[in-house]
This record gives sequence, C-alpha cells and structure tokens, in this order.
Amino acid sequence: MAHDLMRGVGGGKPFLLMEQSPSVSNWHDYCALKRPGVMRLWSWQAVAHGADSVMFFQMRRSIGACEKYHSAVIDHVGTGDTRVFREIAALGKELEKLGDATLGASVEARAAVYFDWDNWWALIHTAGPTTDLDYKEQILDYYRAFYDLNIPVDFVGAEDDLGGYRLLVAPVLYMVKEGYDEKIRRFVADGGIFVTTFFSGIVDEHDLVVTGGYPGQLRDILGIWVEEVDALPRDKENSFIYNGSRYPARLLCDLLHTEGAKALASYQEDFYAGMPAVTVHAFGKGKAYYVAARSDAEFYNQFLQDVCKDDCGIWPLLMQTRGVEVVLRKNEKGSYLFLLNHNDAFSRVWLEDGCTDMLSGEYIHGGREIKLAPKDVRILKKE
Amino acid sequence: MAHDLMRGVGGGKPFLLMEQSPSVSNWHDYCALKRPGVMRLWSWQAVAHGADSVMFFQMRRSIGACEKYHSAVIDHVGTGDTRVFREIAALGKELEKLGDATLGASVEARAAVYFDWDNWWALIHTAGPTTDLDYKEQILDYYRAFYDLNIPVDFVGAEDDLGGYRLLVAPVLYMVKEGYDEKIRRFVADGGIFVTTFFSGIVDEHDLVVTGGYPGQLRDILGIWVEEVDALPRDKENSFIYNGSRYPARLLCDLLHTEGAKALASYQEDFYAGMPAVTVHAFGKGKAYYVAARSDAEFYNQFLQDVCKDDCGIWPLLMQTRGVEVVLRKNEKGSYLFLLNHNDAFSRVWLEDGCTDMLSGEYIHGGREIKLAPKDVRILKKE
Amino acid sequence: MAHDLMRGVGGGKPFLLMEQSPSVSNWHDYCALKRPGVMRLWSWQAVAHGADSVMFFQMRRSIGACEKYHSAVIDHVGTGDTRVFREIAALGKELEKLGDATLGASVEARAAVYFDWDNWWALIHTAGPTTDLDYKEQILDYYRAFYDLNIPVDFVGAEDDLGGYRLLVAPVLYMVKEGYDEKIRRFVADGGIFVTTFFSGIVDEHDLVVTGGYPGQLRDILGIWVEEVDALPRDKENSFIYNGSRYPARLLCDLLHTEGAKALASYQEDFYAGMPAVTVHAFGKGKAYYVAARSDAEFYNQFLQDVCKDDCGIWPLLMQTRGVEVVLRKNEKGSYLFLLNHNDAFSRVWLEDGCTDMLSGEYIHGGREIKLAPKDVRILKKE
Repeated sequence: MAHDLMRGVGGGKPFLLMEQSPSVSNWHDYCALKRPGVMRLWSWQAVAHGADSVMFFQMRRSIGACEKYHSAVIDHVGTGDTRVFREIAALGKELEKLGDATLGASVEARAAVYFDWDNWWALIHTAGPTTDLDYKEQILDYYRAFYDLNIPVDFVGAEDDLGGYRLLVAPVLYMVKEGYDEKIRRFVADGGIFVTTFFSGIVDEHDLVVTGGYPGQLRDILGIWVEEVDALPRDKENSFIYNGSRYPARLLCDLLHTEGAKALASYQEDFYAGMPAVTVHAFGKGKAYYVAARSDAEFYNQFLQDVCKDDCGIWPLLMQTRGVEVVLRKNEKGSYLFLLNHNDAFSRVWLEDGCTDMLSGEYIHGGREIKLAPKDVRILKKE
Repeated sequence: MAHDLMRGVGGGKPFLLMEQSPSVSNWHDYCALKRPGVMRLWSWQAVAHGADSVMFFQMRRSIGACEKYHSAVIDHVGTGDTRVFREIAALGKELEKLGDATLGASVEARAAVYFDWDNWWALIHTAGPTTDLDYKEQILDYYRAFYDLNIPVDFVGAEDDLGGYRLLVAPVLYMVKEGYDEKIRRFVADGGIFVTTFFSGIVDEHDLVVTGGYPGQLRDILGIWVEEVDALPRDKENSFIYNGSRYPARLLCDLLHTEGAKALASYQEDFYAGMPAVTVHAFGKGKAYYVAARSDAEFYNQFLQDVCKDDCGIWPLLMQTRGVEVVLRKNEKGSYLFLLNHNDAFSRVWLEDGCTDMLSGEYIHGGREIKLAPKDVRILKKE
Repeated sequence: MAHDLMRGVGGGKPFLLMEQSPSVSNWHDYCALKRPGVMRLWSWQAVAHGADSVMFFQMRRSIGACEKYHSAVIDHVGTGDTRVFREIAALGKELEKLGDATLGASVEARAAVYFDWDNWWALIHTAGPTTDLDYKEQILDYYRAFYDLNIPVDFVGAEDDLGGYRLLVAPVLYMVKEGYDEKIRRFVADGGIFVTTFFSGIVDEHDLVVTGGYPGQLRDILGIWVEEVDALPRDKENSFIYNGSRYPARLLCDLLHTEGAKALASYQEDFYAGMPAVTVHAFGKGKAYYVAARSDAEFYNQFLQDVCKDDCGIWPLLMQTRGVEVVLRKNEKGSYLFLLNHNDAFSRVWLEDGCTDMLSGEYIHGGREIKLAPKDVRILKKE
C-alpha cells in the first residue's frame, strides 16, 4: 500500500525507492534478520508497484552513532563473503537480465482510493467520538480487500482527476474540501460508483461542521440522513446481515434514515436494530454506497467483489492464490505480470494465457498452473 | 454518590445540576450514545438526591473547537426532529406535571459518611504503604453498601454538626484534624455509633504522624493499638471470618492488639493469623468499630446491615430490588419516594403503603408489588 | 549478588552495609512487612558475603516528609515493645555471641564474573538489535547458576588481576576495553577457562565497532566468526541440543562459523538450523567457550557445572539443598560456613565434616544431615 500511495502522490509516474534495507533495521524493538529471499522479494515488489530504481541504505555499515546496527551491503566484517552481500549481488544479476524492459511502465487501475492528509490530520485532532479511529487502518481495510482480490488500485487526492475510474472508494471522508462534493456528484451522475463510510461528510476544509444533517454535502448523493453516531469499545460489537451472511459492526455505528437510498443491510442488535447499516443510492447514471460501521475483512472482500463485478465490470488480474501478490505494469514494450509469493511454502497460480518469464527467458504455456518456490518472484511478459 | 456528596458540601440544601449531557460526552475514549430513557432517568436521579434544577450542556451543538462532538439539545441538523430533542421535550412536560411539589425538599438521613478533601490530598501524597489506596474507592465501598440497602446517607465534613446522626462512617480517616477526635469522642460517648478502618488516626492536620501508637487520637475511642501495617499486592489476599462467613482482606492489613475492644473477626492466614480484623469497643453510651483491612461488597453489605439494624435502629426505605434505586425527599408539602430502575429489564418493587404517582396522577394501593419498565422512574407521594 | 558485586568493587575487602531496613521500605508499590526472621536472615546474608557491619536505616521513624512510612528500629509508637524492635535486639545478642570471630574474613573464589559499568552504559545506549537486552539480567543468569551450585564467585572489573582464578565468565562482553583482550588471551593461554556469550567483542572503549568480523579482538581466542545477529521477540524462541538435552535459544541468536572452535550444540530451527549455538576453542593451555544465544536456568546450571567440574576442578562448598544458600568466609581464626535457609519450610543440609555452631556453641558431628528451621541461619566454624 505504501508503494501504491507513493505512486499516487506522484501522479502515477514511476518512482524511486530511496532506502531499501539489506537486512535488519536497527530501530525496531526486535531487529529480526530479513530471512533469505525476502530482500529480493520486497525489492521486486517495489518495482511491481511502479519503482524504476531500488537504492539501498547503507553501503557500508557505520562503526559509530545510532545506525551502526542498521544492516548494510558491506557489513562490519568488510568483505563480500556474507549472505546479505551475496543476495544483493544476485539481485543485481537479475536486474541486468531484465534490462530496461519495465522502465517507465505504469500501473493501470480502474478503481481509486481517496486518501487525503488534511482529512487524516483533522481526524487525529477530533475530540470524540472514539479514540480508536485510525484513518490509515480504515484505508487499509478497503485496500486489503482490493489486494486480496488481485484488483489494481490507484490512490487519488482532492486535486486528482477521476476521469479514468469506474469506482471511487473514500473511507471515512470526514472532511469534504470545497468543491469535492461537486466532483463526486458529477462522477456519480456520469455513471461512476462511489463508496464511502461512517463519519463522512462531517466538516469542511476549515474543520467546521457542515450543519443541516450528516453527511453534509454528500447527503443528496448518498440519499441518507445520519441522525446519531454510536461509539463501541473494543470488546463490543453490533452486527448486520448482508447478502445472507452476518458481519460485525464495530468502532462507530451511524444511526441513519434513508432519503431515497435503499438499505442493503440492517443492524441486528441494540436499540437501533433494524436501522440501515449498508445503503445504496441510484444517483444519475451511477450509484453511491454507504457503509455505516466498521466491519471485518470478510465483509470488505465480499462487498468490494460485488461492487466491482456487478456495478463496475472490474475483474481480477488473476484468480486469487492466498499469499501470492499479483501486479501488472505496462509500457510501450509490453505488459509485465509480477507474481510475488509471500508464503513460506510452495504456491500454485493458474495462468490463463501464455507468457515469457523475463528472468529465466523461458516460455510458459497458458491454461496451466505454475509453481512458485517460497518467497519466489516471477516477472511474466504477456503475449 | 456525586449528588449526595455535592448536597453534603452545600450543607444539605437543594442544589442545581449545571451540566446534564443530552446524550454523548465527547471526551470519553468511546463516546457511546445515552440509550433511550437514560437521560431522563439520570435527570430524575439528580432531583431525587436533592437537585431543584437540571440544566443542560449544550443548547446547540457547536460547529468548531474541542466540544463540537459533545451532544446538545439541538443537534448539528438544526431541527427538533431527533430522538434526543424529543426525549428532552418529554422530560420538560413531566416537569410541568410535577410543578413545584418537590422544590426545597431535603433528604433525611440518620447515617453520615465523613469525607474530607485534606484527608484525600494527604493520602495522595504519602510515599507508602501502597500505591493502590484510593480514598474515593474506600468511600465508595461503604457508600455502595448503604445504596444497596436503600439507606439514605449524608456526607459530612470536619465542620459539620453530628447532632442528628445515629451512625458516622469514616473510611480511612487518615488525617484527624484538630479537635475532630474530640467531636467523635463526644458523639460516641453520647450514644453514637462510629465506624472507621485501617490507616486511620495516623497524621494531624499538618500531615505529621501522631506518635504514641496508631490510631493516634482515636486509640482510646476504638480501644485498639495498631502495631504494624502490611500492604498486599493486587493478586494476594488474606481473609477473616465474620458472623460465620469468610470474607477477603485486601490492600492493607493492620496488625493490631485490642485494648478494651472486642474482636469480631480474625485473620485466617500468614504470620498474623489470629490477630483481630474487625473490632468493636463500647465507649460511653455508644460503640466504635474498626475494620482493619479492605474487604468486598458482600462484607460491607452484611456489616453495615448489622450495624444499622442492631446498633442504630436504622431501617431501609424499602425492601431491596437489585438495580432499583430508592430515594426519599421531604418538604412541607409531603414525602416523595423516587424509584429509579437502572435495569434493562422490568423490575418489581414491593410497596407497603399506598401513595400517589406524581407523574401519572394515579393512586397506588399499598401492600402490593408495582412493576417498573426498563429505565423507568416513579415519583410517589406518600400518604 | 549485590553483596558480591560490592565486595568486588572494593577489591575483596570486607564492607559495611549502610542501610539495612528493619521491616518495610516505603517506596515500593506495595510495602509488605518483612516477615518474622527475614531481617535477621538478610543481615547474616550480608555478613556471609563479606560485610563486617550491618547498620540500620532508620533508628526512629520520622513523623514527617517522604520517609515517614519507612520502617525504623523504634516505631512511631516510641517504645521497644514491638516485633521489629525485639527481632533487632535479638540479632544484637547474637552478634555479641559471635564477637569478632568473622571480622576481616574474606570470601575465597576460584571463579570470577566480569562486570563493567561502561559496558552496561554502552549496551543501554545501543539502538538495536533488541530493546530487551538487560546487562544485569545477563549477569544474573550466570550468577544464579553459581549460586544454585554453591560455588563462590568474585566480581572483577577491567583493572582487576585474574591471577587467582581458574574460570572467568564474561556475559555479553560487548565492549572490550583497550588491552583487555590481551589480558584474556594471556589468562587462557596460561590455562584459564573463559566463557563469553552472544553480542560480545563488538565495540572498543570508545563505543566504536571493531571491524573485521565479530567478535572483534576476541575472535582468535574464541576461534569463531559471527556473521549475523538475529533478534527474537519475547514470544519466539529457537532451541539447541547440548549434552543430549534440548534448551531454548532466546533474545539474540548469533549466526556463527567456527574457525578452529568445536561446536558443542547447534540451532534446531529456522534458516540457521545446524549452525553452532555453543562452541569451545582450545587456546594455549586453556579453553574459551562461546554461548551464542540466551538460554534458561537449566542450561546455565548444567553448562557451568560441566565447565567447573571437567575443566576447572571447582567443586561446590556443599551438596545443593534448594533454597538454602551456602557461603564460606575465612580469616586467620578459621573458616566459617554460613547456611541461610530462604525457604518457608524446614530444610535439611548434609554436612560432611564436623563443626562448631558459633551461635549456640554446640558441636555438630559430620557425616549427617542437619535441619534448619524456616528462615533460620547457622554459622558453622569448620574443624
């Protein structure tokens, strides 16, 4: 997510990873070694998400001061006869093989996640309704579902154009900056799909509450009115039923009334049992979804899968294999599919189409499963 | 307890609750909504304990600054069409019905709890014997027993007259201010019942230890000498047997010798097994009790019940129903019994005497049970 | 350990315990009373480890300020009629009986533990590889094994002569001060046995890393090269098999290669399974051991027992009785064996040789078991 976010900040252009760590960082509580293969895996992961360079910190391990136990390409021993040095040298050889094939390539996404630092800071500084609300975690809830589904996403900010996207997800869109509601309104009216959550549409860009009923300027787009917000401690949860399955409602539960929207799920407990927990509103040619409480990974996966498939026609890059990350970069030379096996075990991935393995040079026929070693990486050029 | 304490600070006169919260406060970790009926219940609770007014904070929810998520009579939506507004309006209607009936009424108590801020501050600033001693919790231990027993209490300070009381309870009377021992001495000599605990009679009002053996100036009244004080960590306890039941001894255990007092209970464990844990001393026409360790709610309930009944002739206002608070206010117009159902379920209360329901106007015959809805309130004018 | 360390700081000369506490200290979270017999036991413990005087803080309990609840010889009651006073008076009588017998006596140890404050401070200020490394705990790991084995130890610093010792244990010898490696080198070359651990030989006395491969200047003595250091969080452990038993490897695990040393144990898990966890290197007439990870008390007991017996010919003072501490002091008048029963139960100790009980005057025949009461102390003059 950090890589996608950085690519988004740069407007989708390739970026440079400034400080890859050869092995341990020294500032963790417990500075575990990077296990064999992990430095390579994470380096290719950066490339997969849009990096054109991966630089290392540090070349030589310093002998003094606060980073003397941060790992380095050349350790205190001063020779190249170390595991860490050998792994880096081997990665260099692979880069030679790949050459400039992926340089300048971009990641194509039809789904966007809204991320805004002012929104984050405003949330940090609210007094109430809960101290447990962490904007990054809320973003990660939705991002992780896309990640698990092998669906590429871009991060967009308030200034970014929404033109190329079918889907805009804006978790906890607490602060609606001047004109941004209108941007969303046009996006949805023109056929876009918009998803937002509890505690959205609350303040303007000066952190002042927009009166007239939450979610403020988004109220007409979402077709709802949020009357109250209930905060739940960590050991307490409500629940709702969505598409036949029960999911938890946690953290904050909006108590809302529909004003044109349709309830897709309702709370099951407490005095607001029966009130809507998930809503959808047809607006112009598009739709606007509202998720009124925090839920869990199973819900986010199911919900975004439904929205992507049924409303947006967005399909996964590949069928999902647990622990195997799939990313696609494209440039004028071709399309490159990165398969990153984060598992400690062999993993199998189904390939529909034939392609060329850029590191081995080998051609791989489609319509079969390929096997990835633990922590292994494949870069496949599509036909 | 906060209401009773504030009434005590004001010398028993009616008080004004300045800031009732319509629903959420914004400064909790988790700002849960006040459930339906709770704002009404807690408002009447203040009246029951002596409030003549209940004011709300805030009328309109502010749009900026640190209390913008504190609840208000009028929410950010700006209309009266909210649950919270409707509950407040309904409470207003009830107040109209009650009129000035309870204005100026007082709470009559024959038991008093001593509470002194200087004592509190001195306890906060001791180094040793335990960091877990919290004066408020010690007061609450005894207050809660009175509350559960439906026995009204007043809070008194060092300046207050003890004339009207049969019973004075002074938990952790660590600091005995100049002349206060003499006040207690006269109170007991004249027939009053006095209860105090471990770590009492230690310092004078300048926070200097009174030498000559703990509990200092109270030693002759209590008829004991405390030789040592043992501090127990949270996971450790001793025990004692009182009236045939075993109760825990926690926090601090005084190792004491009787000097005229009689042991009612003795420690069961450790090297001080057999030493007295609860004592009583006949002094003049009265009695002085000493509880040498912290115990639990079951002990406090049993012990205070025994003392109230056997020594003081103090009887509960009503037979106890778990979760239903019972308070009595009296003025020249009559006696008003407040029944406050804190339970989330229907509760039954036995009424001995007939009375008039001040909110419904209905007459209720005595000698029968009445039923209270969850969170419901009754104000009954006694015949 | 504190007593042995203080004796070591003073170069082995008798010391004076400045502030024995008669009973409670006031600055603990929970100031538990010293149980009957404990003040006496701990006073004789100080004498056993080299104290010629035991002074008390405080004579009279103060009535004000922050230590007014620290125990005293004379309590706030102001009389001698207290348990604490009686115990101190009885101890005084025992001291009269003992007279000047043990004055000036020294503790004779053939094993030394290296302890260095600069090393400690350097470890506190490292950033990485783990925040859980506590130098004192590492020292205590080894000290406790000697203690359990009834083997006397001295603490030595960088300036102290190693002449009289067979064994030098230097846990986490992180900082090797100028010339200290040479001191160790000569000690081992001349037949001494040296034990050190993970994260040793890293920096010089200016806290700068010694390049050329860990453990720096100790590399030739230990016959190993440490390539990497893995940090394990608290809930994770590796393991190794030493002499047929499996022991845990915790905290830090060095990944090392032998360079002349012999592996006595190897890691059982993770990618470094099979790498040495304990090594020994024959160097000159002596040996140098390296323990590459933290383990548990069972390992330290077994390992030091083996080293003491097989390599050093160091034997326990007495056969071990759990909870009974055994210390020997010698002067020109004789040898005094202190038996200190820390148990709350009677304990039996096997005496090989006859001796005189210095407190009772009684002669005790050898070749039999003697019985110690809970918390009791015997001072036995050897024949």
